Amino acid sequence: MAIKLGENSYGKSRVRLLRVVRQNGRHDIKELTLAIRFEGDFEAAHVRGDNSKILPTDTMKNTVYALARQYPVEAVEEFCLHLVEHFLTYNPQVFLVDVEASENLWGRITHGGKPHPSAFMRSGEKRTARVTGTREGNTIHGGIDGLVVLKTTKSAFEGFLRDPYTTLKEDRNRILSTVIRAQWRYEGNEIEFSPVWHAARQTILDTFAEHDSHSLQHTLYAMGEAVLQSMDNIREIHLSLPNKHFNLVDLSPFGMDNPAEVFVATDEPHGLIEATLRKE
Amino acid sequence: MAIKLGENSYGKSRVRLLRVVRQNGRHDIKELTLAIRFEGDFEAAHVRGDNSKILPTDTMKNTVYALARQYPVEAVEEFCLHLVEHFLTYNPQVFLVDVEASENLWGRITHGGKPHPSAFMRSGEKRTARVTGTREGNTIHGGIDGLVVLKTTKSAFEGFLRDPYTTLKEDRNRILSTVIRAQWRYEGNEIEFSPVWHAARQTILDTFAEHDSHSLQHTLYAMGEAVLQSMDNIREIHLSLPNKHFNLVDLSPFGMDNPAEVFVATDEPHGLIEATLRKE
Amino acid sequence: MAIKLGENSYGKSRVRLLRVVRQNGRHDIKELTLAIRFEGDFEAAHVRGDNSKILPTDTMKNTVYALARQYPVEAVEEFCLHLVEHFLTYNPQVFLVDVEASENLWGRITHGGKPHPSAFMRSGEKRTARVTGTREGNTIHGGIDGLVVLKTTKSAFEGFLRDPYTTLKEDRNRILSTVIRAQWRYEGNEIEFSPVWHAARQTILDTFAEHDSHSLQHTLYAMGEAVLQSMDNIREIHLSLPNKHFNLVDLSPFGMDNPAEVFVATDEPHGLIEATLRKE
Amino acid sequence: MAIKLGENSYGKSRVRLLRVVRQNGRHDIKELTLAIRFEGDFEAAHVRGDNSKILPTDTMKNTVYALARQYPVEAVEEFCLHLVEHFLTYNPQVFLVDVEASENLWGRITHGGKPHPSAFMRSGEKRTARVTGTREGNTIHGGIDGLVVLKTTKSAFEGFLRDPYTTLKEDRNRILSTVIRAQWRYEGNEIEFSPVWHAARQTILDTFAEHDSHSLQHTLYAMGEAVLQSMDNIREIHLSLPNKHFNLVDLSPFGMDNPAEVFVATDEPHGLIEATLRKE
Repeated sequence: MAIKLGENSYGKSRVRLLRVVRQNGRHDIKELTLAIRFEGDFEAAHVRGDNSKILPTDTMKNTVYALARQYPVEAVEEFCLHLVEHFLTYNPQVFLVDVEASENLWGRITHGGKPHPSAFMRSGEKRTARVTGTREGNTIHGGIDGLVVLKTTKSAFEGFLRDPYTTLKEDRNRILSTVIRAQWRYEGNEIEFSPVWHAARQTILDTFAEHDSHSLQHTLYAMGEAVLQSMDNIREIHLSLPNKHFNLVDLSPFGMDNPAEVFVATDEPHGLIEATLRKE
Repeated sequence: MAIKLGENSYGKSRVRLLRVVRQNGRHDIKELTLAIRFEGDFEAAHVRGDNSKILPTDTMKNTVYALARQYPVEAVEEFCLHLVEHFLTYNPQVFLVDVEASENLWGRITHGGKPHPSAFMRSGEKRTARVTGTREGNTIHGGIDGLVVLKTTKSAFEGFLRDPYTTLKEDRNRILSTVIRAQWRYEGNEIEFSPVWHAARQTILDTFAEHDSHSLQHTLYAMGEAVLQSMDNIREIHLSLPNKHFNLVDLSPFGMDNPAEVFVATDEPHGLIEATLRKE
Repeated sequence: MAIKLGENSYGKSRVRLLRVVRQNGRHDIKELTLAIRFEGDFEAAHVRGDNSKILPTDTMKNTVYALARQYPVEAVEEFCLHLVEHFLTYNPQVFLVDVEASENLWGRITHGGKPHPSAFMRSGEKRTARVTGTREGNTIHGGIDGLVVLKTTKSAFEGFLRDPYTTLKEDRNRILSTVIRAQWRYEGNEIEFSPVWHAARQTILDTFAEHDSHSLQHTLYAMGEAVLQSMDNIREIHLSLPNKHFNLVDLSPFGMDNPAEVFVATDEPHGLIEATLRKE
Repeated sequence: MAIKLGENSYGKSRVRLLRVVRQNGRHDIKELTLAIRFEGDFEAAHVRGDNSKILPTDTMKNTVYALARQYPVEAVEEFCLHLVEHFLTYNPQVFLVDVEASENLWGRITHGGKPHPSAFMRSGEKRTARVTGTREGNTIHGGIDGLVVLKTTKSAFEGFLRDPYTTLKEDRNRILSTVIRAQWRYEGNEIEFSPVWHAARQTILDTFAEHDSHSLQHTLYAMGEAVLQSMDNIREIHLSLPNKHFNLVDLSPFGMDNPAEVFVATDEPHGLIEATLRKE
C-alpha cells in the first residue's frame, strides 16, 4: 500500500487592501479582501520538507500591495487578473493561480445634498470576483455577496410533497427573504466589468421584487434566467440562497388574530437553495 | 460574615420581531431585535428558589408579539415605551424596566427608477433605542450603531505625548475610519423621534466629513457638539468610536514610494475613544 | 446653554500577546488579549485638538510587548497590575488606568499518556482579569468567560408568576444550560491569584452540577454564595448567565412520545440572568 | 440560445438537536448541528413553480427529530446513515442525499475527582461526519473541526523560493499554530466509527507535537500519512490548515532583545494549506 499526495494547494487568505486614488480634490477608494491560492509542483515540500519551490505566502501578500501601487484598482476583476498574470509569469513551478476578492462597497456620504468628494460610508453588501488562471487561459467570475432582501407579497409555497413527517401548512402569502450570493462567469473579450456588474445586480433585484414566487427555487431560477437573457457577456450563473424564515406568530392564545402582520425572524434552521444556470 | 444579594436583574434578549403594515398596496416593515430587563423584588427567587414573583422571560417574549399586533411600530422609541408601560402596569414586583431595541434598517428596492412598494433591501447600519422606566418616569435614548465611515482627507495626528515606548510617527494626512455608535438622550415631551433621529444622523455624518480632525477625540467632540447645538430635544450624547486603523504600506523594499495610496486595513488592535457630552 | 465634556476615556483594544517561557526543555505559554483604557485630563484634545496630553494608543500597545519581555506573565492579574503601575507612574495627566485581559486557556497535548513539554491545544474557555488603578489604589478582578455547561437533571422551573400572555408550562425536569461569565473582586494582600482562580472555578462547576435548581436565578445565587463562602480572598462576585434554552420537541404529530429525550437547541431568544453577591 | 438548469440542490441547514439518553442515573448527551441536502428531479419546481416533487425543508427538520427519537445517536456517522437511508427510501424523486453533521463535544464535569453522571461542559472542538448516499451506495466521512493547536519547537521555514517581493526571513525556530480541520473517508464494513475517530485524532495530535516541521505543508503531510498508515478503515484524508501566524515583536527600538519570547498573535492575513492524501 502506497500513500500518494493528491489535490493540494496553498496560499494567503484575508489579505486586506485599501487603495486610494486622488484626482483634483476628488478621491476614490477601493477596499478589497483577497485570497490567493497556488496549485503546482509542491510534492517535495509535503513529502520531504524541501521548500525550494514554495514562494512564501508572505510574498503573495507583499505582491498584492506592490501591484496595487502600480494599478489603480479600477474593476476588481481586473486587479485579480493582474495578480494571476504576475504569479503565472514569475512562477514556473505553479500551474494554477486562483484569486478571490471581496470588495466592501463604499458609497459617498451625502453632504449638502451632494456626494462628498472624500468622505464615505459602507453598506454590508460585497462585490466579489474570482479569476482562476493557468497557462491555457483564465476563467473570470463576478458576483454579489451579503445582499439581504425581503418581500412582503407575491410569495407562496403550496402544492408541495407531503410525507408522514410533514406538518408545514400551505402558504399563499408568506414573507420571502434571503441573502443573495451570486457568482457569474463572464465570457468574451474586452468586457467592461463594472457596467455589467451593475446591470446584473439590478436585474437580480428587479426579478426578486416583481416575480410571482411559488418557491425560493422558482425565484432563484427566474433571477438566473433574467441575468442570462439580458447579459451577452455572462454565460453561466450560480446562485446560493438561504431561506431566511419569518414565521407568523400564533397570537390566538391571547385572543388575537394575526393577518400576516407579526412575524418572528429566525436564523436557524434555514433552508438553502443552490443552482447553476447556463446558456447552451 | 453575611452574604447579600446586590444589584440583580433578569430578562429576555434577542427577541426578534418583524412587523408588516399593508395599506393600499404599499407595505411598510420594521425589523427589531429587543432585549427586556427587569429589576425588582427577586430576592426570594435567588435565595430560596421561590418563583412566585418571577414573570417568565418567555412571557416577556410573548408580550412583544402581542403588543406588536396592537401597535404598528411607528418609531422604535415608541414601541419601547409601550413595552415599558405595559410591564410596569401589570408587575408591581418590578421597579425598573429596561427595553433596548436595535432596528435593522430596510430601504426599498429601486425598480424602474422608483422605490418598490413591497420589496426591500437592508444596509448593515442599525437604529437603536433604549427606554428605562420606573414609576417615577422614563429615560428615552435614541441612537445609531454599525455605521461604518471613512475619510481620506482632513485627518491628522500630530503633537502627541511621547515616552520611551513611543514609535508612532506624526501624520498630517491619514485615513480616518470608524464605526459610529452614538446614543443620545431625548428630553421634553411630544418628541417626533424619527425626524430628530434623521437630523441627528445627518449632522453626525456632515461633521465627520467636513471636520478638520486633529484626532478621533477631536472628531468625536465635534460630532457630539454639532448634535447638541442643532437639536433642541437632545440633552446628552454618548459616542463610542473604534479607531479602525489603515496603515500605510512600506513599499520601499520594492523600490516604490507610497504617497498615501496603498494601505493595509486592520481590525486588531484598534483604538477606542468614548465620551459623553451634555448641555449644562 | 453651554456644552460640557463629561465622562471620557480612550485606549487600545484587542492587543494580542503570546508569551513563551522556555526552561530546561519545558515550555510554558500565555496568550492574552488586552484592552487598556485611560481616564484623565483630555479636554484640550477633545475641544481644541491639542494632543499634548495624549499618549498614542500605539504606545499603549508597544508597552504591552515591552513589559511582557520583562515579566514572564505568571498570573494574568499580575501582568495587568504591572501595566497599570507603569502607566500611572509615567503619565501624570492620567488619573485612572483600566486594564482588561482575556486569556485563551491552552492545555498540553497528551502524548504517550503524558503532557507534552512544548505542544498545546486550546479550549474555548477564557480566564479573565481586570485591574482598575488610580493613585489611591487598585481594584483587582478575576473571572471566567465562555465556559459552556449543561445539566440533564435537578433543574425545574415551577410556581412562577402568570399573566394573560403567559403560555409557558411548568417544568419539573428541564435541561439547564448556560455560558458562565463570572467576575469576582479580590481583597487582601499577597493573593496567590492562580490557586484562588482554580478553586473558584471548581466551586462554580461543583455547584452547577449538584444544585437542585428551581431557576437559573437560584443556581446563580448558589454558585455565587459557594464562592464567597469558600474563598477568603474574594469579597464580591458578579455572574452574568444566558439561559440557553433547549426546548422539548413535540413529536405527537408523528405518533411518538418524547420523555425528555429529544430537544431543539436555540440561541435566540435567550434569557439573561445577572446578579452581584457580596460579603457584608 | 437556450437556458438550462444545471447542478442544483436544496435542503435544510443549522438543524440543531440535543439527544439525551438516561440509564440507571447516568446520562449521555449528543448535540448535533445538521445540514441535509437533496439532489433530484427538481426542474419543474425551478422552471414552472411546480412543487409536487419538493419535500419541504421543514419536513427534513422534523425527520431529524423523529429519527432521533428512534435512534439513540451512538456515533454521529450512524445517525447520518439513518437519515440518508430514510430519505432515499421514501423519496423516489431524490437521487442523492447529503447529510453533514457537526457535533459539539461535551465532556463530563469533574466533581469530587470523578466524572459527573449528568453535568457536562463543552470544548470548542467539533467532531464532524458526512454521509452522501445514492441508490448505488454511500460514502462516509468522519472528521475534526475547530481543534486549535500550537507548538513552540520543531518548526522551521527555510530554503524557500525568493522573488523581488520576498522580504520574509528564514526562521529556524518559529511558533507553529493552526486550527485542525480534517475529513477522512472510511472504507469497509462494520466500522466502529468512534474508536477509529479517537485513534485518528490522537494520531494527528501526536504527529503535530512530535514532527520536525519544515513547513505547514510538511506537517500536514506527516499528519495525513500517519493516519493512513495506522488506520485500516481510512482510505483517504483531506486536511485544511490555516497558518495562524505569531509574529516575533521587534523590541530593539526599546533597547531590548527578543529571544523568541514575545509574539503578536494575528488572524489576518493567514496562510491556508490544503491537501488530500490517499492510499493507492
